[in-house]
Amino acid sequence: MSVTVRVPMNIALVKYWGKRDEKLILPLNDSISLTVDELCAETSVELVKQDDHTVSINGKEVDLESNKRYRTVFNEALRFQRKRAHEKENGTSNNNIGLKFKVTSTTNFPVAAGLASSAAGFAAISMAIQILIGLDETQANKVARIGSGSACRSMFGGLVQWKSGIKDDGTDCFAIKVNEGWNTLRCLIFVFDGEEKKVGSTEGMRRSSQTSDLLKYRIEHLVDKRIAKIAEAYEKRDFDEFAKVIMSDSNQFHAICLDTSPPIRYLSDASWKLIEVVEKFNENGKRKAAYTFDAGPNACVILEDQNVQDFLRFATSQIVVPIDDLNKISTSITQTEQPIAVAKKLIYSSMGSPPTQL
Amino acid sequence: MSVTVRVPMNIALVKYWGKRDEKLILPLNDSISLTVDELCAETSVELVKQDDHTVSINGKEVDLESNKRYRTVFNEALRFQRKRAHEKENGTSNNNIGLKFKVTSTTNFPVAAGLASSAAGFAAISMAIQILIGLDETQANKVARIGSGSACRSMFGGLVQWKSGIKDDGTDCFAIKVNEGWNTLRCLIFVFDGEEKKVGSTEGMRRSSQTSDLLKYRIEHLVDKRIAKIAEAYEKRDFDEFAKVIMSDSNQFHAICLDTSPPIRYLSDASWKLIEVVEKFNENGKRKAAYTFDAGPNACVILEDQNVQDFLRFATSQIVVPIDDLNKISTSITQTEQPIAVAKKLIYSSMGSPPTQL
Repeated sequence: MSVTVRVPMNIALVKYWGKRDEKLILPLNDSISLTVDELCAETSVELVKQDDHTVSINGKEVDLESNKRYRTVFNEALRFQRKRAHEKENGTSNNNIGLKFKVTSTTNFPVAAGLASSAAGFAAISMAIQILIGLDETQANKVARIGSGSACRSMFGGLVQWKSGIKDDGTDCFAIKVNEGWNTLRCLIFVFDGEEKKVGSTEGMRRSSQTSDLLKYRIEHLVDKRIAKIAEAYEKRDFDEFAKVIMSDSNQFHAICLDTSPPIRYLSDASWKLIEVVEKFNENGKRKAAYTFDAGPNACVILEDQNVQDFLRFATSQIVVPIDDLNKISTSITQTEQPIAVAKKLIYSSMGSPPTQL
Repeated sequence: MSVTVRVPMNIALVKYWGKRDEKLILPLNDSISLTVDELCAETSVELVKQDDHTVSINGKEVDLESNKRYRTVFNEALRFQRKRAHEKENGTSNNNIGLKFKVTSTTNFPVAAGLASSAAGFAAISMAIQILIGLDETQANKVARIGSGSACRSMFGGLVQWKSGIKDDGTDCFAIKVNEGWNTLRCLIFVFDGEEKKVGSTEGMRRSSQTSDLLKYRIEHLVDKRIAKIAEAYEKRDFDEFAKVIMSDSNQFHAICLDTSPPIRYLSDASWKLIEVVEKFNENGKRKAAYTFDAGPNACVILEDQNVQDFLRFATSQIVVPIDDLNKISTSITQTEQPIAVAKKLIYSSMGSPPTQL
């Protein structure tokens, strides 16, 4: 039997930064996110007779010795299965003994875009395995998380909160759906060149946890309030407040990176131009667009569908985007003025869709 | 009678950001600084019969209507004088009635360098007035402060702490000398181009005070500890610890700017290159150099004299500096490798000298 799923990536609106357990990937704080529908992993998993598990991504075989997390994921999934078999059948045999996972995945992420493709990838593997061997939701969520922390947020549609939990074994650490989809939400992802050599997020989180006093304060006093504000603004469809918290939290996350020793920089000149463009677009009235940046220079601009054309017209007067990408969203916009920054790619997407079985 | 003084600029090692009173320029937190000997204002003040106060800087008359702080400074100085005359002479007349201040100042700051020339300028005016009309130290310190907040830190040599105080009238807000000069300390100031339109520090401080949760935490819980650490490391001549706190505090100040809504950016690409150079220079052993950035892209690198040549050799392999500036410090260094950033000017200075009467 082969199970095929499609799982979207997700973008955090209140960010996760820092682990309380690196092995189990337990975060220091809760985070909250939306899926980005257009960027996804399509993944098939089957259990087959072969010497070892195999993973192929976009037609290329993954070396499981240098990418250890796949094996961790497979082992945990099989452990859950054995546990269940043991409970149900009072210790009798497991009918999958000797079978190995064969994973075939394709993604539509732009190559080296610095977008969180691993989150969608591990969420897709976990969901396919969940269906294939019959894990419950909590088990599948854990399998996704130990593959790539934020993958657990891609297991649901709508607004999703990843609870950090406090238990050492991580049994109270999982993602839950907080709210249904907000149908008019869209995002525009501006893919910029990475100008700096990136500090990987695992290394960056470790460094911030060890050296940033502001991170400790953020985790203890600010994150939960912000998540509550996001959930409330989302519930009320109050875009102005929603945007305010999203931008503040993106900025605070990058502030924490700067408060780290040695300091970490993810925002490039182009990122800052995009920030200026959004701040300018929001002047004089209610906020109509919100930027958010993960551990890289690329911007995700969140806005309601009714404001997409206006924003694009305004943004492309200062940031040049590939004309083919632009024409997919609008054919009436011409990029004429002197650009102050250039994006390699522009992606347009709805937000909040759940993963699906194909 | 004319009084002439020379007053150096100062650079904060633990930064001041945010005012508790904008009119009296009372800061939200203490700060601690060293003077930069080579950059200074040379200022003569006399009391003369003329229609109004006059200020000339580098041969150019200042418009006192659009630069209101000069008048504030003069009025406060004269108020102190009248108060003293009143106390001493039991209400008899003031022999300076009708006389006005004539200020003539020259500075050696590179034009538009974004260095804190106003701090040295107002400190110089205040010190000259102090001698001219006989103010006490606390009075002169206040006069300097209401001209330009950090000017009060240029009124002494050595390590100087500006106490924020808590009183509404600011009578407990003044700078004090914490320690004598550390004779081997030097600084190298890399003047970079300002790539961004700068948010002025008055506006920036206001915005951060109103919107940054991290600033509140910094002020309440971190600043005093850092000042104590700086004072202790300075006392012990423990450069490694001294450098650690200086760099952390510079980074935290810029993190606060980023945690502001809308976010404020003072560090340019070139600033970040300099940060990388210093972090790299400090790898594998005790720290031998420390960067600090005020509200602009220019770097002040603090180090001991014995490490100046090594650092310069290392830094100029990646950051090009004007050859004339370099030759003043070393004639044995050639800038050969591919530069990753370019400085417009390099200034070399001792640190910690007091202002002097000429």
